[in-house]
Amino acid sequence: MTRFIGVESLATIVHAIGIEPFLIGLAGYIEQDFRRWAEFHKVPRHASHSDLGVVELMPISDADRFAFKYVNGHPGNARAGLLTVAAFGVLADMDTGYPRLVAEMTLLTALRTAATSALVASRLARPDSRVMAMIGLGAQSDFQALAFRALLGIDRLQVYDIDPASTAKFVRNMTAQGFAVEAFDSAQEAVMSADIITTATADKRNATILSGNMVGAGIHINAIGGDCPGKTELQREILLRASVFVELEEQTRIEGELQQMPADFPVTEVWRVLAGLEPGRTSAAQVTLFDSVGFALEDFSALRYLDALTADDANIAEIDLIAQPDDPVDLFGLLQRYRPTAQPSLVAVSA
Amino acid sequence: MTRFIGVESLATIVHAIGIEPFLIGLAGYIEQDFRRWAEFHKVPRHASHSDLGVVELMPISDADRFAFKYVNGHPGNARAGLLTVAAFGVLADMDTGYPRLVAEMTLLTALRTAATSALVASRLARPDSRVMAMIGLGAQSDFQALAFRALLGIDRLQVYDIDPASTAKFVRNMTAQGFAVEAFDSAQEAVMSADIITTATADKRNATILSGNMVGAGIHINAIGGDCPGKTELQREILLRASVFVELEEQTRIEGELQQMPADFPVTEVWRVLAGLEPGRTSAAQVTLFDSVGFALEDFSALRYLDALTADDANIAEIDLIAQPDDPVDLFGLLQRYRPTAQPSLVAVSA
Repeated sequence: MTRFIGVESLATIVHAIGIEPFLIGLAGYIEQDFRRWAEFHKVPRHASHSDLGVVELMPISDADRFAFKYVNGHPGNARAGLLTVAAFGVLADMDTGYPRLVAEMTLLTALRTAATSALVASRLARPDSRVMAMIGLGAQSDFQALAFRALLGIDRLQVYDIDPASTAKFVRNMTAQGFAVEAFDSAQEAVMSADIITTATADKRNATILSGNMVGAGIHINAIGGDCPGKTELQREILLRASVFVELEEQTRIEGELQQMPADFPVTEVWRVLAGLEPGRTSAAQVTLFDSVGFALEDFSALRYLDALTADDANIAEIDLIAQPDDPVDLFGLLQRYRPTAQPSLVAVSA
Repeated sequence: MTRFIGVESLATIVHAIGIEPFLIGLAGYIEQDFRRWAEFHKVPRHASHSDLGVVELMPISDADRFAFKYVNGHPGNARAGLLTVAAFGVLADMDTGYPRLVAEMTLLTALRTAATSALVASRLARPDSRVMAMIGLGAQSDFQALAFRALLGIDRLQVYDIDPASTAKFVRNMTAQGFAVEAFDSAQEAVMSADIITTATADKRNATILSGNMVGAGIHINAIGGDCPGKTELQREILLRASVFVELEEQTRIEGELQQMPADFPVTEVWRVLAGLEPGRTSAAQVTLFDSVGFALEDFSALRYLDALTADDANIAEIDLIAQPDDPVDLFGLLQRYRPTAQPSLVAVSA
């Protein structure tokens, strides 16, 4: 049988552990996997496009496990009350090819993106960072705030979104979670005197959410909104001043803020920092930038974490995804196992 | 919610319709999709190899639907009582990117392979065919026999397998299904005076299951065992004498009996025959060969058929694979929906 971890099941697991402890544990798995970067078979995602959106399969494997995430991107979905990005995934054994678990990954992706951001910031932001500015308060923003508090102790937020409803949602949610949240009327005001700036806007174009004059010395920028071709958030001038860190260089050059830069613009892959091969921040005045687009390795880590959390949990549902014939050569016999039994015949009994 | 069709559910559906009517319906869907060949976005499969086997993702889409099959190949699994090939799949909407159903595909692949074989044979075998020889009596063979009876009326089988246990399994199963089954001590004897020969052996090497002297004029050969690089069943001389039909030419040249032939050896894609663009059999003496390796389109058709069969079936299980937030921007609110309610506090009441 294969474990199935749906939306309710995942949410229940997260609450049983606590959201922030869950994020800390998840960050640990992501760090462990980034540190053994060379052990992974990394391939480009497969994409099927239509007029309305894209469906992608993102596979990755090491010697022990195979994982893939299915994820869509349909901007028009919101009008129908559907998610513009929804996802699910599978973790399987390389030794047998059998799936271990099928999981929802819409919530899980939000959690792993936030855990990755905070993990990387823990190596790049100034250790005395206290205030985070957040530009873009959509579905991902709440998870970012919680991960930065869990991993870096950040509990003061200065926020801005062009949409008042998103701002109200964020202030309501995060105030209830004990954050000191101050909402501003512009991005310019929100970033004033912040130590960390997180940009997570949804606009699918080359926008300037953050311009050079808004970024002072010593800032760490966590840029997660520029994540596909034709979508960027930062003025080019910022990249010229910053030390730029990425997940998978070849992917970020196509999908990230790096789209704006020449192909030889220097970057550092974050796994090298996490593995201790390169320094992170080297001075208090340095501007650091995590140009994050999301990578299949983080999904692999998230599924591996979920696998460890649920391996001995009798409350997890199981589904009969894979046939279990008594004799592997007799698949027809397996089908016949489910043949309906004959109706009991009615026997007329004479009185 | 997403429909989940597990092993038991699929088997129940098949029995409710009847195995042979199910195969006829499935063949109809496969034919319909082959006839609109140009409408599909066809891509190579993604493969992740380990020392023990391979895990593959096979995606395909048209303007309306996206489908993929996950399938493994682990020859050593049988020793552990596991399937060497197991599969599951997903059918999704291109308009929204949302999955419609998740289905077991181990049984379903056996059914679609058999339906495809019989569909193609219905255009290539002599109309007066009465007797089928079958070499290789593994997991696929029973389904082949049932599909050939359902679509071509074949009910006389002359069979052979090197493994007596597989032979006994097949004779037991198919005799109970009303076939006249005669088992022989060699492939040479089994093919004598047969109208159709199906080869479906599991040997993963370049074998000679069928040699030229065993193939008389007018025979149709349904070769489904030579289906991956380094695995073939037919003597090269047979291909030189036969008119060869394939699913996707570029795939069959790598995986099928065609591995033995030069790159310009002439073949006909079966969709052209099914669409009426090319003749099938043109004379009673012609030797026809379907060099079948299996193609993602057949999985797409099988999932589309299953989708149609279960769309209004209240007995089909549903799983919460995709999050349904009240507000798409408030994914955190969705997580909080599942927050455990506070324990009722115990109130000490004075007596």
